[in-house]
Amino acid sequence: MRDCVRRSSMSGKFFPERSMIMLGHARTPVTIVGLGSMGRALAEAFIDADHPTTVWNRTAAKANPLVARGARHVEAVEDAVAASPLIVTCLTTYDATTEVLLPVAGALRGRTLVTLNSGTPAGARAMSAWAGGHGARFLDGAIKNVPSAIGADDTQLYYSGSDSAFAEYENTLNVLGGDISHLGEEPDLAALYESAVGATLLPALVGFFQGAAAVQSRGLQAATLIPYTVKWLEMIASVLPVFAREIDSGDYTEPMSSVRLFLEAAAWDEEFGRETGVDVSWNAPLHDLVRRAAEAGHADHSISALVEILRKPQTVA
Amino acid sequence: MRDCVRRSSMSGKFFPERSMIMLGHARTPVTIVGLGSMGRALAEAFIDADHPTTVWNRTAAKANPLVARGARHVEAVEDAVAASPLIVTCLTTYDATTEVLLPVAGALRGRTLVTLNSGTPAGARAMSAWAGGHGARFLDGAIKNVPSAIGADDTQLYYSGSDSAFAEYENTLNVLGGDISHLGEEPDLAALYESAVGATLLPALVGFFQGAAAVQSRGLQAATLIPYTVKWLEMIASVLPVFAREIDSGDYTEPMSSVRLFLEAAAWDEEFGRETGVDVSWNAPLHDLVRRAAEAGHADHSISALVEILRKPQTVA
Repeated sequence: MRDCVRRSSMSGKFFPERSMIMLGHARTPVTIVGLGSMGRALAEAFIDADHPTTVWNRTAAKANPLVARGARHVEAVEDAVAASPLIVTCLTTYDATTEVLLPVAGALRGRTLVTLNSGTPAGARAMSAWAGGHGARFLDGAIKNVPSAIGADDTQLYYSGSDSAFAEYENTLNVLGGDISHLGEEPDLAALYESAVGATLLPALVGFFQGAAAVQSRGLQAATLIPYTVKWLEMIASVLPVFAREIDSGDYTEPMSSVRLFLEAAAWDEEFGRETGVDVSWNAPLHDLVRRAAEAGHADHSISALVEILRKPQTVA
Repeated sequence: MRDCVRRSSMSGKFFPERSMIMLGHARTPVTIVGLGSMGRALAEAFIDADHPTTVWNRTAAKANPLVARGARHVEAVEDAVAASPLIVTCLTTYDATTEVLLPVAGALRGRTLVTLNSGTPAGARAMSAWAGGHGARFLDGAIKNVPSAIGADDTQLYYSGSDSAFAEYENTLNVLGGDISHLGEEPDLAALYESAVGATLLPALVGFFQGAAAVQSRGLQAATLIPYTVKWLEMIASVLPVFAREIDSGDYTEPMSSVRLFLEAAAWDEEFGRETGVDVSWNAPLHDLVRRAAEAGHADHSISALVEILRKPQTVA
């Protein structure tokens, strides 16, 4: 048995008072496959929490800083898999993961495979079937954050797949981020939620970039937007539960913000683009959704009624 | 002189310990023109803070609950303007505001007009010129929140226009929300920032609605997304300062999230739409912006380099 004081080092940096003492519990050996910036952050968190950590990467040199920190590096992916009961992959896609693991699939039997790439629910289901076919338990996880957040107490990761694997390794996976949850046994739920939640990212960022270009057109810095945009995103977050209730009940008749309000704002957006010399044309299909919702009888309903329009893909002639 | 204890009543509800004592200072009489849901909330905040409050609305009946609360209602807009040195309008547009005030423009001389509608910077400039032409000082303000938030200490409003009017009425306007700022003397800055900041709203909401439709396609409730989406928006807010620095410096070469990463994710979005039966086609121009950024040499640059693409409107043949 190893040293009995388990410390989540990354989170310890930020929250030193929350160090944990776990008695009589040796740290689970962990293997990390894939040492991009996120994979390295995952490996560092496990190393710093005193988990025996084996690392593998196609370009071996990427392992050097981790070895200096205490990781064991192996050249053969088979040895990497054999080193630990818990294999965490952080490659670009499910296909890339299968490609790396295919030659050593036999070694997976009796182990738990955790994939932390992004991808579609179908990809996660195929990955789960493949891992199960080789006798491994499977968890798919989503990290909705940047590498530097790995290990912090409030960093969120969610998993789906094998109940028994999650129960067995929850404390180990907790090292990667303190806000951890298991969405259910269906292996594709994490990918479903990752895509569903992630759907706000690019549009919100492009909205911010559009605003940045607009203030820059007046010789003002993009940074001057931050206090206002941050507050604005907080406001948006605060009203989402209302929209979710409307969507779940299908009752859009007591609008906090009506479709008509957004319909009126659409004209300003276009005028704003002309005034500031910013390309706002990417908003056109959003305005079109609003227009279609109004035409479908939702003009004085909540803007959340757009979900009814999104649910019925149009066939373009 | 009236009672010397000034209390911001709405904020007092939430933060009773922050009540303020202002000695020797009578509350400024205020007129509210336009009693939609936001106008009513503004009037209530002034009434509850013991400002002599005059209200006017085209449909007079909307004033009744405010009169019961202590407001004075007048039938003629001229009397409304004459009642107070500070006139706050909350109509739908600048045009609607001018239409209401035009017949009584002479009564504006020596008063301060504050417009709290949304609109374009050009609209705010025209409004300012019109008010100035009639001898009134002018402030344009943006309320980036819902009516129920009016009066709270952390509710944000920002203004632009007359420095002297803002200095004179800052304490009065503070009643509407404790997080108040003056962006500068140029009258269109509030409209500029409102549009720039507001550009994230519809896209972020549609992203959320898309996610809601996706989880519903699996028989799950939209509400189950909330804890994940709220955290996700917090994450987005936390990285915006990094993007703003990149945009202000024009240096996109040390990406936290690269254009290439979003290019790869675009294919998953489309696949996700097919899997869940959700119309994700509104994302196409976003993906196109990402593709154009990559083609312009930004593939391994930060996603914030999209601002360079947005700044150069394409001429469509």
